[in-house]
Amino acid sequence: MILRDAVHGLISFEAEEERVIPQLMDTPEVQRLRRIRQLGVASYAFPGAEHTRFAHAIGAAHVMKLLLARLRQIHGELPFWQQVTSERAQEALAAAFLHDVGHGPLSHLFEDAIAGSAHHEEWTERIVLDPSTGVNKVLGAVDPSLPERVAALVRGENALPYLARAVSGTLDVDRCDYLLRDAHSTGVRYGVFDLDWLFRSLRFAPAEKGKAPGLAIDGAKGLPAIEAFILGRLFMFQQVYLHKATRAAEWMIRTVLGHASAVVADGTRLAGTPRAIEMAAHGQAPSLSDYLELDDGVLSVAMRAWEDAKDKSLADIARRVRMRQLFKTYELFGEQALPEGRQRAFEIAQDIARSRGFDPKLYVGLDVAADTPFGADSEPLMVVFAKGPARPLSDVSFLLARLAGQVMSRVRLIVAPELRDEIAEVLSQSADGAPAASGSGG
Amino acid sequence: MILRDAVHGLISFEAEEERVIPQLMDTPEVQRLRRIRQLGVASYAFPGAEHTRFAHAIGAAHVMKLLLARLRQIHGELPFWQQVTSERAQEALAAAFLHDVGHGPLSHLFEDAIAGSAHHEEWTERIVLDPSTGVNKVLGAVDPSLPERVAALVRGENALPYLARAVSGTLDVDRCDYLLRDAHSTGVRYGVFDLDWLFRSLRFAPAEKGKAPGLAIDGAKGLPAIEAFILGRLFMFQQVYLHKATRAAEWMIRTVLGHASAVVADGTRLAGTPRAIEMAAHGQAPSLSDYLELDDGVLSVAMRAWEDAKDKSLADIARRVRMRQLFKTYELFGEQALPEGRQRAFEIAQDIARSRGFDPKLYVGLDVAADTPFGADSEPLMVVFAKGPARPLSDVSFLLARLAGQVMSRVRLIVAPELRDEIAEVLSQSADGAPAASGSGG
Amino acid sequence: MILRDAVHGLISFEAEEERVIPQLMDTPEVQRLRRIRQLGVASYAFPGAEHTRFAHAIGAAHVMKLLLARLRQIHGELPFWQQVTSERAQEALAAAFLHDVGHGPLSHLFEDAIAGSAHHEEWTERIVLDPSTGVNKVLGAVDPSLPERVAALVRGENALPYLARAVSGTLDVDRCDYLLRDAHSTGVRYGVFDLDWLFRSLRFAPAEKGKAPGLAIDGAKGLPAIEAFILGRLFMFQQVYLHKATRAAEWMIRTVLGHASAVVADGTRLAGTPRAIEMAAHGQAPSLSDYLELDDGVLSVAMRAWEDAKDKSLADIARRVRMRQLFKTYELFGEQALPEGRQRAFEIAQDIARSRGFDPKLYVGLDVAADTPFGADSEPLMVVFAKGPARPLSDVSFLLARLAGQVMSRVRLIVAPELRDEIAEVLSQSADGAPAASGSGG
Amino acid sequence: MILRDAVHGLISFEAEEERVIPQLMDTPEVQRLRRIRQLGVASYAFPGAEHTRFAHAIGAAHVMKLLLARLRQIHGELPFWQQVTSERAQEALAAAFLHDVGHGPLSHLFEDAIAGSAHHEEWTERIVLDPSTGVNKVLGAVDPSLPERVAALVRGENALPYLARAVSGTLDVDRCDYLLRDAHSTGVRYGVFDLDWLFRSLRFAPAEKGKAPGLAIDGAKGLPAIEAFILGRLFMFQQVYLHKATRAAEWMIRTVLGHASAVVADGTRLAGTPRAIEMAAHGQAPSLSDYLELDDGVLSVAMRAWEDAKDKSLADIARRVRMRQLFKTYELFGEQALPEGRQRAFEIAQDIARSRGFDPKLYVGLDVAADTPFGADSEPLMVVFAKGPARPLSDVSFLLARLAGQVMSRVRLIVAPELRDEIAEVLSQSADGAPAASGSGG
Repeated sequence: MILRDAVHGLISFEAEEERVIPQLMDTPEVQRLRRIRQLGVASYAFPGAEHTRFAHAIGAAHVMKLLLARLRQIHGELPFWQQVTSERAQEALAAAFLHDVGHGPLSHLFEDAIAGSAHHEEWTERIVLDPSTGVNKVLGAVDPSLPERVAALVRGENALPYLARAVSGTLDVDRCDYLLRDAHSTGVRYGVFDLDWLFRSLRFAPAEKGKAPGLAIDGAKGLPAIEAFILGRLFMFQQVYLHKATRAAEWMIRTVLGHASAVVADGTRLAGTPRAIEMAAHGQAPSLSDYLELDDGVLSVAMRAWEDAKDKSLADIARRVRMRQLFKTYELFGEQALPEGRQRAFEIAQDIARSRGFDPKLYVGLDVAADTPFGADSEPLMVVFAKGPARPLSDVSFLLARLAGQVMSRVRLIVAPELRDEIAEVLSQSADGAPAASGSGG
Repeated sequence: MILRDAVHGLISFEAEEERVIPQLMDTPEVQRLRRIRQLGVASYAFPGAEHTRFAHAIGAAHVMKLLLARLRQIHGELPFWQQVTSERAQEALAAAFLHDVGHGPLSHLFEDAIAGSAHHEEWTERIVLDPSTGVNKVLGAVDPSLPERVAALVRGENALPYLARAVSGTLDVDRCDYLLRDAHSTGVRYGVFDLDWLFRSLRFAPAEKGKAPGLAIDGAKGLPAIEAFILGRLFMFQQVYLHKATRAAEWMIRTVLGHASAVVADGTRLAGTPRAIEMAAHGQAPSLSDYLELDDGVLSVAMRAWEDAKDKSLADIARRVRMRQLFKTYELFGEQALPEGRQRAFEIAQDIARSRGFDPKLYVGLDVAADTPFGADSEPLMVVFAKGPARPLSDVSFLLARLAGQVMSRVRLIVAPELRDEIAEVLSQSADGAPAASGSGG
Repeated sequence: MILRDAVHGLISFEAEEERVIPQLMDTPEVQRLRRIRQLGVASYAFPGAEHTRFAHAIGAAHVMKLLLARLRQIHGELPFWQQVTSERAQEALAAAFLHDVGHGPLSHLFEDAIAGSAHHEEWTERIVLDPSTGVNKVLGAVDPSLPERVAALVRGENALPYLARAVSGTLDVDRCDYLLRDAHSTGVRYGVFDLDWLFRSLRFAPAEKGKAPGLAIDGAKGLPAIEAFILGRLFMFQQVYLHKATRAAEWMIRTVLGHASAVVADGTRLAGTPRAIEMAAHGQAPSLSDYLELDDGVLSVAMRAWEDAKDKSLADIARRVRMRQLFKTYELFGEQALPEGRQRAFEIAQDIARSRGFDPKLYVGLDVAADTPFGADSEPLMVVFAKGPARPLSDVSFLLARLAGQVMSRVRLIVAPELRDEIAEVLSQSADGAPAASGSGG
Repeated sequence: MILRDAVHGLISFEAEEERVIPQLMDTPEVQRLRRIRQLGVASYAFPGAEHTRFAHAIGAAHVMKLLLARLRQIHGELPFWQQVTSERAQEALAAAFLHDVGHGPLSHLFEDAIAGSAHHEEWTERIVLDPSTGVNKVLGAVDPSLPERVAALVRGENALPYLARAVSGTLDVDRCDYLLRDAHSTGVRYGVFDLDWLFRSLRFAPAEKGKAPGLAIDGAKGLPAIEAFILGRLFMFQQVYLHKATRAAEWMIRTVLGHASAVVADGTRLAGTPRAIEMAAHGQAPSLSDYLELDDGVLSVAMRAWEDAKDKSLADIARRVRMRQLFKTYELFGEQALPEGRQRAFEIAQDIARSRGFDPKLYVGLDVAADTPFGADSEPLMVVFAKGPARPLSDVSFLLARLAGQVMSRVRLIVAPELRDEIAEVLSQSADGAPAASGSGG
């Protein structure tokens, strides 16, 4: 199978060990990913951000193929039982392709919103292991042990830890693909890095006694590539993932889903509610097949139906989402951004909402996002040289040395537009100043 | 308003005359375009092709802005009443932005499938002119005559014919944007041309007596730009718009919609059918508000519901669409591609379907597509030189001289996979050969 | 060895069979290519066109590496004696890298200008075969037969005709690299094609009895890629290679070199003349080492010296070249472009020059350029299908069917600016019209 | 005038105020920039880095044109005497175009190597002001005061300080063009930033009393653009400008020039030495016309001639440069990189050279490079917000806050390959370790 990809150009899966990918692609569970956008509601801020989890899954498998080719160039220095075999390549490709197959619609919103619902990782595991799924049948037909091996690898477990980290780690194929793909679709040009050069810079670090070998960066050639990769992620966070319009829309949808769920839990019948949400609202775990019925279109049609609900707030917020009449954000800085300060600000904002006749739980949110762009890993990325010992990346890179462990955070109130000015006025009087470099030492 | 666009980079609408665009963007009718993909089901063949009519509408308005800037560089040579005023710029921008606002879901499929349904051009006109819409209110608030003027321009009528042709013509802003956007999303690299250079090459042709001036290409600088533009469209046709998987999926969806409509017309209740389709099926024109409820998600949920219909064929084909179990194509060449030959081939294929127990109307289709890549226009594109008269582009371009009036056509049977081999075997015996350069002199 | 290339990104030569490339790169003959621009004086028209034959040689070797990888994916269907071995790969890489090593400065101008001088192909062969060169020593150290094998392959001779055609043919690695590289440096965006997809589309054509197998295009996937490749070359010809400023500058330099050579032949001492030119002027073949002293800088310094020559015309034209005071072109169309007509026009122009006191041989030129963009090959490119016989590309491609055998030609007078207006006026009176699509059926 | 640029695409200078650019382009002093590469010998490390100062000058003028367009969008808020007039635009364009017109060949090497030679800024000023030059004539013909005004602006003096800083400052048009151009030619993908978005993010900072207004970044939209710009420069430094092969080649050429100059000063006649170098060697200032004879080709031919000099070291190093047999680098870290340590290491290396019969001054160099990627300016870049005071960029940017004032430095010995191993062995025994993040707090 060959196909055109907007990011990587030509993608092919034709070798014997790659054949499982086209077979998986034809399963209903994977086809469902066509109907779930990778970036959820980010298209409210970036109109081009409509790419799906399906395209990303293909991209991730392609990146794994590129990585396997690099590993085979360098694995000769490992003992043969640590080298990449066709069997291991196959499970790595399948794991890369399936790593997000359990994702619900609208990114993480569904699992966040419905109390007690399973996480997407759990759904992924069920899809891989449940004998009723097409995915399980395809994997099992290749080798009865393959479903279990793929599930383990998606969980981050493998006899070859470097393969496990390539599926889920600082430098994994998931991230390699989504950074490039999100940049391509949004038009944000800062997330781009040089994948070829990055992979070409991979080496095995000299294994410590009794430990499995891990991947490292070639200090002579690879520093700019890994620096650009890590900065690319930082830029995408600042620009896209934490964009105020995206965060506001996400908060609104989470509110709609959570409130609809509460309404249903109260025993009110809510027309148009998908069965999986009804089950979850009543505290029952949705069946796998009910869960798999969910996609962006189904949720969008359900929210359209809720616009006709008796619950005025539910109807109102659902309508605002569809019309893109987004809530406004008010960013908190300095003292106000710290836990105590932001709680106080949140309460002030809720009081204002209440006094103006809005349900404060539904019309005022506190949104705290934090990320450590570099150095949060328990196992640091190592850099190797022609001579001398491997050293942590943060010791070697001028740039990353200055970022290591630094936490970037953004704290915002999310409020109905009708409330924004009053809240801003009250809060600005007690604030200690304007924006600051949003971070604090780790 | 400024925003990031995956194709054009930075897009802004901030000048006085551009302010109508952000206002229109916030109307429900335009927001609905977020839920309608530009290329319908082409993502079955090109996983990246998920961009929406909303993004394209913004792109088209941006291209119009670029074009207006160029027109103002050169309109000094026209009498002042033929120059671009702010008022005309405003209606041109609005027309570019709204030219497709009436499109139904899944591209042209809806209007093709439902007998007697209005064309999307008609819906566009209603959205612009009907006082109930947000679009009409925004336009009318600017100037009571603006809705009518925009509707006229979308229809191709304007006091300045060169503006009318910029909204709808060989070299219009719609095409300029969609070729680049479709290429960007699909990853097909052949549709790309140099928009800056193309617009920089525009001149006014010396107006003939009593006629309005038209745009022409500068012969000294612009030939490669216009050649690449026309070839870009040809490449996109060959690769994307006429791709066999796209055409098969389109045919299947048209069949599902048409058959569901027929079932409803027969009086059978079909759960999950949108009201606009029910109305149309019963021969009643859907109301504008019912029509505007339709989008890709709504249609996708409706087709999911039909998978549970009693009509087995309807349920079967709807399920195949969702699972991407597409019908196969069998391309006809030579004699078999001519009207008589293809009719005979079609009947043979239908007979085979019938004999195998398939409803031939639903499981066998004849798909004829034809395009004249260059020279089909009644008014040819002219080329101007420093000296001498303007000349038709086909007289001047080495490449286009050889393409002028040539018709590219593709004739295919579209059949259920179960039938493909038998049909291919029977038809290949009577065919006169292998693929040929699919065209015939105009 | 790995390096960054502006066109292909990461380039590496590290496998055993590729090691010869870095070794060749360090020879004086190859290093000399750093001082010779690929496009000669095209930078007079496109300021970015400064890339060297050295960068192109690396690119061509890289493209050969990509091609060899593709050949090895598909050569399994050939008898083993026709497959790609490491030995053959090595000679193919070396031949791709060295194919232009004998080029003189300023593109083809040197060999055109100096009567009786050897062609660059001959110098290439001498560099490969002469035991005094670094190139010969590197090749000979690998295998004593390698110099001869490489020389043969550069000449187009090899036991595997498909390898020979990959070094020199319609679809050779030279052309694949230079089209992309010239487009990248000039900023002309029309020469770009999709190299990955093109190579992925290669198949072996079913060999006819007793004949060696040749490469063909996969009809199901490859048509747009090969069409874009051929059109890319056509666009580069129209825009860059035949650009009027480039052609005028080339003509002037050829005139300067030829005239300097004539002056020297007459026995006049011309200070600053490189020894190789002096030898050639006196009818003696320059030695290889004298030839290898020539590069763009040497020629540029020589022409600077000639600005002080007693021969006023020589000094004048040399100065104009350095100052970029280029001669003007006057393009001939219709009857005037045919052999008789252009001869007459040329003579008219020369008469005008003479009457104005200019040496007509030096101040008026006739420049005829012709190219057959597609279909000039004796062996047509074939297209293969899943079923049925291979067919010529011109039978299968809508676009190329219309281009096959068509000759694109441009006929221009090149004249000193002082003469241009008078010549244009006289000639325009006898001309039959304005520009026409510059071609004629083959 | 319109032309194609490899970096910016379409470039045009056609407005009245821009006409001076094409006129300047035709002067001998500007044409000379065609023969001087922007990056000197960086092409030894990056084969594509052959772009000239001529192409960069055009690019810088184009970027100034873009900047002027932005300034005119926002200068309405300034008092009219601080706005951009056509006259000021003209001098800004000319200054941007001419800012480097006095550069000698091979980047800064010439002025570094020849003791007492004037700096390129001084030559630029002379070219602009000396009535004998084409540049002066063109400027003077426009307005007798223009040469003086352009010279002042190139020096950084202007009634509008924001214009002066746009010619020479942290965010000047020179840097905007060269970062993009160097990235494009080398193939290094990390120097790329989003010029459109960066300029769109410019605002005027609220002027303090009695002070002229300066440009600032829009805090709501512009942070990523300016961050990427500053990081782009950092990346280019790490990868290209401080590349070990480039630094080694530069050191060698500086050594050749300096030594040749010393030889000439000693009274030895050195055939092929350009007159400007002879003059300088004898302590006499070269005339402007002698200086303008210098270019990369002239220097390259001179160094070729010196290969035949009696001074064996001069001949040897000159030959190594041409053959690209570069000296090796040995990077110093930790203690060894500090002033005392590196001096000691340098002396050790010189001793080894001496003991092996090499002239230590010519065969061993100490190369110290340092840069402060951000925050070295006396006037910090300010960021403005919808409300509240302007704040320094380093207070607002998470990333730049961590870079501000940090010094990145690289300390290397540059030694003949024959000496490298012995020097490395001796020095590694006294070193305190492997590479470290090359920087220290400012």
